[in-house]
Amino acid sequence: MADKKLVEEITSMEEDFAQWYTDVCIKAEMIAYSQIKGFMVIKPWGYAVWERMQALLDARFKATGVENVYMPMLIPESLLNKEEELVEGFAPEVAWVTSGGSEPLTERYCVRPTSETLFSEFYQTDVHSYRDLPKVYNQWCSVVRWEKETRPVLRSREFLWQEGHTVHATAEEARERTQQMLNVYADFLAEDMAIPTVRGRKTDKEKFAGAEATYTVEALMHDGRALQSGTSHDFGDKFAKAYDIRFTDRDNQLKYAFQTSWGLSTRAIGAMIMVHGDDRGLVLPPRVAPLQICVVPIQQKKEGVLDKAFEIKELLTGAGFRVKVDDTEKSPGYKFAECEMHGIPLRVEIGPRDIEKGVCVIVRRDNGEKAEVEIDKLADTAAALLEQIQKDMLAKASAFMEEHTYSASGAEEFRQLFAEKTGFVKAMWCGDRACEEKIKEELGVTSRCMPFEQEKVGETCACCGKPAVKMVCWGRAY
Amino acid sequence: MADKKLVEEITSMEEDFAQWYTDVCIKAEMIAYSQIKGFMVIKPWGYAVWERMQALLDARFKATGVENVYMPMLIPESLLNKEEELVEGFAPEVAWVTSGGSEPLTERYCVRPTSETLFSEFYQTDVHSYRDLPKVYNQWCSVVRWEKETRPVLRSREFLWQEGHTVHATAEEARERTQQMLNVYADFLAEDMAIPTVRGRKTDKEKFAGAEATYTVEALMHDGRALQSGTSHDFGDKFAKAYDIRFTDRDNQLKYAFQTSWGLSTRAIGAMIMVHGDDRGLVLPPRVAPLQICVVPIQQKKEGVLDKAFEIKELLTGAGFRVKVDDTEKSPGYKFAECEMHGIPLRVEIGPRDIEKGVCVIVRRDNGEKAEVEIDKLADTAAALLEQIQKDMLAKASAFMEEHTYSASGAEEFRQLFAEKTGFVKAMWCGDRACEEKIKEELGVTSRCMPFEQEKVGETCACCGKPAVKMVCWGRAY
Repeated sequence: MADKKLVEEITSMEEDFAQWYTDVCIKAEMIAYSQIKGFMVIKPWGYAVWERMQALLDARFKATGVENVYMPMLIPESLLNKEEELVEGFAPEVAWVTSGGSEPLTERYCVRPTSETLFSEFYQTDVHSYRDLPKVYNQWCSVVRWEKETRPVLRSREFLWQEGHTVHATAEEARERTQQMLNVYADFLAEDMAIPTVRGRKTDKEKFAGAEATYTVEALMHDGRALQSGTSHDFGDKFAKAYDIRFTDRDNQLKYAFQTSWGLSTRAIGAMIMVHGDDRGLVLPPRVAPLQICVVPIQQKKEGVLDKAFEIKELLTGAGFRVKVDDTEKSPGYKFAECEMHGIPLRVEIGPRDIEKGVCVIVRRDNGEKAEVEIDKLADTAAALLEQIQKDMLAKASAFMEEHTYSASGAEEFRQLFAEKTGFVKAMWCGDRACEEKIKEELGVTSRCMPFEQEKVGETCACCGKPAVKMVCWGRAY
Repeated sequence: MADKKLVEEITSMEEDFAQWYTDVCIKAEMIAYSQIKGFMVIKPWGYAVWERMQALLDARFKATGVENVYMPMLIPESLLNKEEELVEGFAPEVAWVTSGGSEPLTERYCVRPTSETLFSEFYQTDVHSYRDLPKVYNQWCSVVRWEKETRPVLRSREFLWQEGHTVHATAEEARERTQQMLNVYADFLAEDMAIPTVRGRKTDKEKFAGAEATYTVEALMHDGRALQSGTSHDFGDKFAKAYDIRFTDRDNQLKYAFQTSWGLSTRAIGAMIMVHGDDRGLVLPPRVAPLQICVVPIQQKKEGVLDKAFEIKELLTGAGFRVKVDDTEKSPGYKFAECEMHGIPLRVEIGPRDIEKGVCVIVRRDNGEKAEVEIDKLADTAAALLEQIQKDMLAKASAFMEEHTYSASGAEEFRQLFAEKTGFVKAMWCGDRACEEKIKEELGVTSRCMPFEQEKVGETCACCGKPAVKMVCWGRAY
């Protein structure tokens, strides 16, 4: 049967999670592979999700005083070289432009992998006085990083993101902004994308090249692996010193400025797929779903059915929802499967018998629950259900994360947990990079962060047994 | 005086139009020069204008069924080479990426100057049947063209734009879409940006590399020079043949598909500056103005003044307008000058004496008209004024274009007009490319388009005197 086919085409999560993920990306028409190795095409459904995410996140940014700008796509090699750690961090993975038109360039330009250098150069010329501060700028753009191994949406050689870059008069203000933006990410992920995260600080080993401190929101995928879903960096005055960003303060002294940067990318779409998806495909949280309700007419050739379906669409659109009618020639069953594959939160079915009774059937994507609803009450019911779905999805993902977060009080338990379980493991750490590296090498897991909410899950380092200074959240990461 | 300074810093239009234009771009904080030759930084005010333009144009697109997508930023040389004319047209001005990370690439990639090749490659794999057609895709992105001479906003080595790329089952449908999108541009420019344009078809000499027909909207700047403000291309099945885009039609025959593309860029911001600006700076049409009203408190340290100013802001924001209060330490006069420089359509002044009387003063940016308004009636007055400004700006620009559009019935008059006047000159043309080239060489003017609204302004070609086939609109172009 046609309506089974679409579903059968995807691998089940249990059988092969990685293949399931790729299948969903492709079959839900989020992306297509491009013939250019490591680059993806973002298809209309995937891009519409990104547009929703952009609108919601951008509004959150603007509420905190962020202004959008646009910086050049290319960075001269000499500019990149000014900050040593940044060069070391990014040079191995940038694409180099060596000629413009038929002329070779006198200096190589790289396609931006991130734009700290460009913002710093701009601030160097644009910031003179404390009156010019702070500047809280952001740009939405694409960046290129020449990854060796790629994976749809999660790791591609080009991706879309926003990168915020701010400059402040004091170290404290920069630190506050760094944490503020991390909280914006965590709230956006939880409230809009229904993705719970662990908030914390990266260890020195895992922090951003050139940052004084990197904060992160770490999400847990359905296969128990971690995904870094947004980061925020406090640069102190390091970049200001490298790029000579100085301002005259109120006390008439010339001082170095303090900077931050923070980014969230299309990777977060990958997180959403792997947190909420199931064997029928994508499950979209109502707030980011490009379409919230799909109306499927039953026996649509019978008189009045299509009219009623479009009447319902008008009714729901008028109530502020994003709605379509699927009036194609496909069978209702096939349409149901398509709605499910695309993750549309609600499906409304309307047929001749429903019309007679003045009702329709409404079906939730997240849990499959069906209900018969009077058409007069449909808008109210849909509003309540969409709100409920948004809540339930977060609750379900939070419960999953909680169930898959373990604590190890000592070294043995730590190893055993990673041998038997998948998920986050909280354990104590002595603060020594050598231990961190040893754990990574032996167990294949990395320190995701030092959570803001510290607990004393043990006394000693889960690696070396020395006195511990921090609790770290460990995991196998994407 | 401080409030004079900002204004005095810009050159007057009469004195030096090019310098005036650059001054406005910089002083109105639309852009900044980047230290990377030919690249610009789009500053918050400039980017906010672009965001408004994007929102308005994107809504017009979506109303005609356009879906947004995202294609890779890089194009392999072999892919670019598939369509001969396109390569010839763009190869001299692309930036080439030759290595990724530390590895040289086996094939050069260019940074997209435009994405016909990428969309064609995508359609080649994604279009199989007439059921897959049409596809009406668009992307918002940046492109790179290695221009030799650059000019702020108007011609830079990187610019932002949207590029629509569609594929259809029939030549007729493609032609209709090409014209439909040209009309979308013309309507957007007229209704949202208050920029009147001449719609027409480009001559073969001026059309897009690889297109069967290029349609254009041509605007007239305040210095009498023309600016191509949006183009729409009908490719027929040329690209389909080069990239092998075939589909099975209803009659079961395998057929080549038909394509279009259409683009509008940040150049249109340059048009807006040069059509509406004056010696006090930018003049923004209310629909695209990021802020529509600036409230300037007078004697703001007096009790109650700032409170009232913010109360007015709330009142106007609640009525749906984009409003700010300038509560900085600057003098009112300086604030007035800044509002004017940034082109904010309305300024509201509120001081202690106004508060006593329950009134405020409202000032139009476009014509300087002042009026005293009761605060109770302010929201209604502002709504009416913003609508009136939007209309008046279009009417003024239309009158200017009309006054500066001339008709030449013969060769002598044609030369004389361009010797004496600046603007559009309509003249008859024999259709011979040699005449077009001769006119360009001798007079420095180019054929802007063959207007859809043809008139018989003479009998014979304004160059060679042979029988004419078309009326052409000529001008000196940016």
